[in-house]
Amino acid sequence: MDGMERLDQQIRFVTEIDRLKGVLRQTMLTEPARRENSAEHSWHLAVMALALADHAPAGTDIGRVVAMLLVHDLVEIDAGDLFAYADEMQHARQQEAESAAADRIFALLPPDQAAALRGLWDEFEERRTPEARFARGLDRLQPMLANLKVGGGTWQEHGITADQVLVKVRLIEDGSPALGRYARDLVARAVRDGLLAPEPGATAPEPGAAIPQPGITAQEPGTPAKAPSDPGPQ
Amino acid sequence: MDGMERLDQQIRFVTEIDRLKGVLRQTMLTEPARRENSAEHSWHLAVMALALADHAPAGTDIGRVVAMLLVHDLVEIDAGDLFAYADEMQHARQQEAESAAADRIFALLPPDQAAALRGLWDEFEERRTPEARFARGLDRLQPMLANLKVGGGTWQEHGITADQVLVKVRLIEDGSPALGRYARDLVARAVRDGLLAPEPGATAPEPGAAIPQPGITAQEPGTPAKAPSDPGPQ
Repeated sequence: MDGMERLDQQIRFVTEIDRLKGVLRQTMLTEPARRENSAEHSWHLAVMALALADHAPAGTDIGRVVAMLLVHDLVEIDAGDLFAYADEMQHARQQEAESAAADRIFALLPPDQAAALRGLWDEFEERRTPEARFARGLDRLQPMLANLKVGGGTWQEHGITADQVLVKVRLIEDGSPALGRYARDLVARAVRDGLLAPEPGATAPEPGAAIPQPGITAQEPGTPAKAPSDPGPQ
Repeated sequence: MDGMERLDQQIRFVTEIDRLKGVLRQTMLTEPARRENSAEHSWHLAVMALALADHAPAGTDIGRVVAMLLVHDLVEIDAGDLFAYADEMQHARQQEAESAAADRIFALLPPDQAAALRGLWDEFEERRTPEARFARGLDRLQPMLANLKVGGGTWQEHGITADQVLVKVRLIEDGSPALGRYARDLVARAVRDGLLAPEPGATAPEPGAAIPQPGITAQEPGTPAKAPSDPGPQ
């Protein structure tokens, strides 16, 4: 491949990824009041990696985290964004669509670069390295900050409960214990402020109150577990 | 400063920069047809730094280029975006507003990080290092690609001429000779396709035609240099 053909391929990739600016996520912004798109979301995460680098495990390669976050949502150009609280079947379908999208989009680049960026995307998805775990944690933390800023956001829109959010908080903890603790405090604050529906087991019981038995209370007619609504891929 | 206070400051910065998603640039997108915002623009440039890294001078620290591009427009949260073809007085006013914005925004971070990111912004503005020159070149190339994609864009909207664009191309060349050549070809193509107004001296003369004398033709009543319109800060 000569230098000019290589540059042409790179520019084709650069031109194609422009479309990520049109992929809308569930997250609401305040100024202006509209849904966030995946390009500006990716930018926000990359700056978060720089600003919160202190809280990554020692030895984490932050440059690699930034690069991973910059490309982690490119597959949504073809596959769309899936709401984090979608059900398992939707997640399985999404995974298939994203894998096909990765095959197409990264292959626009010259082979060596296609392999390198595809490798970063796979690494993010597999969540095995400290870099991928930290990146995934930031990807979970950012929508929480957005929801707190808009006074509930997607949590209220989809009737998400504290227990559901706490499952995501475990992913944040997995990437960064300090950010995990911070996120756990945010959830407690959101429950206190009525932004997030509490569930048995999600909050500390009142002094003297009987400790709820999740296996039993979940069956009680008065307290069904709220299912997230089904937004589907956007 | 204890760890918690430090994290609180970092999160305040992360929350504040959300506002860059509301700063609109002149550049038009195709899908959806709307103006680009500065957050998604910054993301696009950072991915360009990864995809076009081959064309930076040997030894350029691409991680530093990426970090620089991620924060280079944060000042627009306060100062707004200025069209690249605005006049000198507007650029001087903008510089003052951006410097005040940098003082406020980076200082949201703990002092060591504030100094580091402010340093990256100053480096970008001063254009002395290879990293800054490459980053500035990408910042000039991206709107050219967007204008070609939409069939004229801001060039036609503001009556920009090939000579005016070629001044910006010199900044691209300064960061990367290969990308500069590529950009020069783009300008020639845009003139050929009627997307950009030609000016004497901007294109090769027809065989046998008299070589135009810029100092004289610029005075001729039939060929006044088109002044860019005045969009002002957005």
